[in-house]
Amino acid sequence: MTYCLATSVEEGQVFLSDSRTHAGTDQVSSYSKMHAFDSWPDRKFVVLSAGNLGTTQAVIHQLEQDIEDDADRSLYTVARMADAAEYLGELSRAEQSRYEEGPTAGFDPAVSFAIGGQIDGEDPALFLVYPQGNYIKTADSAPYFQLGETKYGTPTLERLLERSTPLEDCAQCALMVMDATMRYNVTVGPPVEVMLYRASSLELGPYRVFEEGDPYLLTLREARDAALRKLLHELPEIPWEPSES
Amino acid sequence: MTYCLATSVEEGQVFLSDSRTHAGTDQVSSYSKMHAFDSWPDRKFVVLSAGNLGTTQAVIHQLEQDIEDDADRSLYTVARMADAAEYLGELSRAEQSRYEEGPTAGFDPAVSFAIGGQIDGEDPALFLVYPQGNYIKTADSAPYFQLGETKYGTPTLERLLERSTPLEDCAQCALMVMDATMRYNVTVGPPVEVMLYRASSLELGPYRVFEEGDPYLLTLREARDAALRKLLHELPEIPWEPSES
Repeated sequence: MTYCLATSVEEGQVFLSDSRTHAGTDQVSSYSKMHAFDSWPDRKFVVLSAGNLGTTQAVIHQLEQDIEDDADRSLYTVARMADAAEYLGELSRAEQSRYEEGPTAGFDPAVSFAIGGQIDGEDPALFLVYPQGNYIKTADSAPYFQLGETKYGTPTLERLLERSTPLEDCAQCALMVMDATMRYNVTVGPPVEVMLYRASSLELGPYRVFEEGDPYLLTLREARDAALRKLLHELPEIPWEPSES
Repeated sequence: MTYCLATSVEEGQVFLSDSRTHAGTDQVSSYSKMHAFDSWPDRKFVVLSAGNLGTTQAVIHQLEQDIEDDADRSLYTVARMADAAEYLGELSRAEQSRYEEGPTAGFDPAVSFAIGGQIDGEDPALFLVYPQGNYIKTADSAPYFQLGETKYGTPTLERLLERSTPLEDCAQCALMVMDATMRYNVTVGPPVEVMLYRASSLELGPYRVFEEGDPYLLTLREARDAALRKLLHELPEIPWEPSES
């Protein structure tokens, strides 16, 4: 499993990813699931991935190869963020289609991607690219995408994230949710990467890797545990008799 | 889907259930998933169910029929709580086995049950009965069972529920978790039933049904939302530069 979260709010974007990959419980590794494209002054991209690691690496390699080869179509040449999502979806489909036939029963090459960032002249944008290659953009009512183990985080994100939420708050909220998800699903694990992109800056960062047991993550966990205990302590008593209406 | 929660702590037990059943999104109904057996002074049982409604009703009916028929084996005759779990598991298996053969492709008659309560002379006990008929008892380290849509509640329950948690706090915590689960999974829905059993009282209750929009559930939701926003507001800033070690 995986947990990645990308948020697009008024102040900018936050990208968050875990690093655990596994093929069964006895074949566990760490690979980065965050891929930044930071070479050009007029455009920045961050890609998050969840799914088959072979497909992920092949697609990321192709993104890089097309840039290096000065291909007609690459992240360097696309005119709009939506074109970047379309292009990423097509690469993903092409890679997966290699396994449609042949001795690959029970093998699932699917990968979901999130791609965010900004191209100069356009607003920042964030897309979720499905394994099928089609894609959706964040909406004002739903300013984030989760990949992988999404359920543990949903109640917190739905309560806290809005388009107007400050960027640093989004990052704190993301880290808090990541901590909970790692705690309750052992197939999500550190190191955790966080990247901020401030709208219209055309500069990626700050960026930070949190290793297992990082004191800040422990602080978040303790603060949340304490807040929940305090909440429970302060809740009004259950009215066992329904009120007259 | 379903959400049921049963907790067994030092002070007693809490039972909580939603009422939504569905066969597809356009065949939604309400049925109680909480079944109390309250006829005898020396023993009390509460059964929660999640899964196929036909199996559930057949099994509950058989539990009642065996009592009415003064059968050699019934909830009235079992000597221990574990025997009640064993008996419930056998009824469930027998009912499901009727559909092993014949024209029932794609049909899943499985049901999970939780059975709690107390038989005079024994401590209160709580069991989870799997669709296969086998069963497990709560442990000090894990004093609760969830049935159905378990993920939304886990982070809160794991943080708050211990064997020493007061019974009313368990019930408040359970209702808070139910509210979140109903909010994020539309196949879990009201009315919500809550039943308390105070250890060694051999009296069931208090019991309460919360209908949709009950003011107390709204209070819980607002209190939790406010606590989370306050927590986010008070979190320390992210240390973008790792501390020297």
